Amino acid sequence: MKCPLCTGDGGLVVARTDSFRVIRVVDGDEARRFPAFYRLVWTDHVAEFSDLPDTDRHACMDAVTEIERVLRSLLAPTKVNLAALGNVVPHLHWHVIARFDWDSHFPAPVWAAPQRDEVVGGAAARLAQPLAAVDAAIAAAISRRC
Amino acid sequence: MKCPLCTGDGGLVVARTDSFRVIRVVDGDEARRFPAFYRLVWTDHVAEFSDLPDTDRHACMDAVTEIERVLRSLLAPTKVNLAALGNVVPHLHWHVIARFDWDSHFPAPVWAAPQRDEVVGGAAARLAQPLAAVDAAIAAAISRRC
Repeated sequence: MKCPLCTGDGGLVVARTDSFRVIRVVDGDEARRFPAFYRLVWTDHVAEFSDLPDTDRHACMDAVTEIERVLRSLLAPTKVNLAALGNVVPHLHWHVIARFDWDSHFPAPVWAAPQRDEVVGGAAARLAQPLAAVDAAIAAAISRRC
Repeated sequence: MKCPLCTGDGGLVVARTDSFRVIRVVDGDEARRFPAFYRLVWTDHVAEFSDLPDTDRHACMDAVTEIERVLRSLLAPTKVNLAALGNVVPHLHWHVIARFDWDSHFPAPVWAAPQRDEVVGGAAARLAQPLAAVDAAIAAAISRRC
């Protein structure tokens, strides 16, 4: 079976370098409940973070940190969640998710059971900035740093 | 309210430096279901990964990577899961969890609903090495690298 992150982008591409791309999750429950949900997808098909040489690992986390900084700066989330799981798709990707105390799952992880009703009409409307502005700021930060 | 990771170790300490400690989760459901569940807890009370200066961030992930390498080398897990969430305890800590295709939740995240019954008598007995050996190997790796 082909790896879906080797054969497709996996979301809306907001930035791309030779080593990785940054996508925003735009489909399904996740995008509706957690609109500022980004993923850094490493270009090469490696399963584990420790498969990367040190310089690539540092560059990878520098980029993850840039995404986190943009989310904090533009959206002032209650918390940022970072995770590299890959149990279903074992191709290295980092989840970078802005969490809010009003989101449907907070303080539980996004993968756990909901804690309250969803924001009616989608949570994106409650963000301090339009997602297009967040996308653009991430693209600029990655271009500057990486 | 005092931060529980400022006032207590949060688990069995297997390694400690000036900057962080590595603990193994030893209590409750998590320890029984996912016995090779470690956490790197940053010493200073910072909430977000991007609160750290670059050198500390790199050192932090170098240590996370050392833990991951020991888990892969000794236990050959199906996948390693890395996460810094902190929604409940916003004091920087990285979860480093060896996952197996036979564990109660795989391929779902450990925070999601179980996929199958737990291993009777605890999952630790199915590991390729005793946890004490994994603890010792992590301590040695951190001492060597950090």
